[in-house]
Amino acid sequence: VITIGLDAGGSAIKGVRLEGERIAAELRRPHHGVDLIGLIVAAAAELSTPDVEAVGVGLAGLVRHPGGEFVWGPHLPLFNVETRPILEEKLALPVAVDNDANLAALAESRMGVARDRSHVLVLSFGSGIGGGLILGGRVYRGTSFAGEVGHMRLTEAGDLCACGNRGCWETLVSGSVLDRAARRILDRNATGEDLVAAADRGDAEAIAALAEAGRWLGIGVANLVAVLDPELVVVGGAAAQAGEWLLEPARMAMRENLRSDGHRPLPRVVRAGLGPIAAAIGAAILAGEEYSGDNDGDE
Amino acid sequence: VITIGLDAGGSAIKGVRLEGERIAAELRRPHHGVDLIGLIVAAAAELSTPDVEAVGVGLAGLVRHPGGEFVWGPHLPLFNVETRPILEEKLALPVAVDNDANLAALAESRMGVARDRSHVLVLSFGSGIGGGLILGGRVYRGTSFAGEVGHMRLTEAGDLCACGNRGCWETLVSGSVLDRAARRILDRNATGEDLVAAADRGDAEAIAALAEAGRWLGIGVANLVAVLDPELVVVGGAAAQAGEWLLEPARMAMRENLRSDGHRPLPRVVRAGLGPIAAAIGAAILAGEEYSGDNDGDE
Repeated sequence: VITIGLDAGGSAIKGVRLEGERIAAELRRPHHGVDLIGLIVAAAAELSTPDVEAVGVGLAGLVRHPGGEFVWGPHLPLFNVETRPILEEKLALPVAVDNDANLAALAESRMGVARDRSHVLVLSFGSGIGGGLILGGRVYRGTSFAGEVGHMRLTEAGDLCACGNRGCWETLVSGSVLDRAARRILDRNATGEDLVAAADRGDAEAIAALAEAGRWLGIGVANLVAVLDPELVVVGGAAAQAGEWLLEPARMAMRENLRSDGHRPLPRVVRAGLGPIAAAIGAAILAGEEYSGDNDGDE
Repeated sequence: VITIGLDAGGSAIKGVRLEGERIAAELRRPHHGVDLIGLIVAAAAELSTPDVEAVGVGLAGLVRHPGGEFVWGPHLPLFNVETRPILEEKLALPVAVDNDANLAALAESRMGVARDRSHVLVLSFGSGIGGGLILGGRVYRGTSFAGEVGHMRLTEAGDLCACGNRGCWETLVSGSVLDRAARRILDRNATGEDLVAAADRGDAEAIAALAEAGRWLGIGVANLVAVLDPELVVVGGAAAQAGEWLLEPARMAMRENLRSDGHRPLPRVVRAGLGPIAAAIGAAILAGEEYSGDNDGDE
């Protein structure tokens, strides 16, 4: 089956054409929050060939599946938009729409590091933490919006979150948290990547900042393991780029926070396999699963 | 289908004989942690009739399903015991074994307040917090031991938990937490029930202690709602007995802690419907579902 997958994030649309498991074409188009639907349609047209059977679209925010209503998201200029019927009309193809983190998880479970695993937690670190849950081999969405793991509250202190609360997981570890640490430790234009480079050079303060963020990564993962008992935890985005500076402290904190569980094996915590186009790949996979009759990709 | 369900908790074995959805017989036998398997067999024999087709058993602790290995639990005198083959031999009937909180959740979803709901979180408050997850209409177990929600870490402070950590949810709200508050506020023999009675009489300190425990109940529920987005949250055990003194502050804290979610409906938080025999009923239901071919009750 040949499908197109598109992922509309806060600053760019990424897209792939997927032929079976082969990425036959790929694009990336920055956007400025204007006419997002138009840009999605243009990106699909650019990737299209006559044999494309369906299009999948990932959106950063609260999306109702399978209806495709984009309810709300802080990074996209959409609010209560019925995206799926609009896109199906403009593209004249079946369209599947889902939350981007769900799609990254689907992609890792079908073509990435979580292939053939039944119960997988996939975390995508950017300005916040997106969570995708593969439970029983399928994307778990709950009533609509499961996987909003970044808003688990882990401490009573902590910085104010975009959601209005304090102590949310994503205020303690995320791409933005690493960027802020970089600005504090290095200079005001530094980013999380610079922080990792500084750690690689042996900068003790950078190493400590990554370890502290990693500790919070591990505490949040421990909570999710207690609740969901996945076989595998997959970490993507900024946290994957930070690599072992973040992941090793995270694994330690996870073990430390699941003490009673000397009685059970803990899941491995690994880096994502598909990189920044994971959600676009997942969108193409979802479109294929929903419109080719293989498997509905839903739970 | 006619089945027997037994629930072995820390101090008593409870049992039912279930004929369809009718509870045809019921028993409760205290135990002192000696010969638990023998007591379970005796309880099954007492409830049995010639037309019983299968037996279900709930155990408080980490249980592997469907194999029936009891791995560990702080309240039962068992450790790495293959309970299912032993019980099947002694009872000469098919036996299903599962964690007690999973079974309470199954019971609420089949015969209680969560009937016909797909995604339900069922919390059983005793000395700790047992969690049972009904996801997609089935008990979700993850790799083996999902639902250990009492060990989510919610704060960096807090009392030491039995697991060795600090800040676990069950150190902040549970039957034991209410008992301790009662001893502190009322007298050294007082229990959580006395605390609720004092609140009913207008005792401001008792009301405040219940509200504080309720606030923590709501914070933990908010975290689970962010992750799982259930349709319904069911609260059983000591927390149900404390009623609105606990549940109303819990609902307030849940809303307060899911602020970004003005964009989505929040689940109702309600008291359990089946009371202290919920897990025994669930055990009987599981046995029926696994051995009558209706539905495997598994995910």
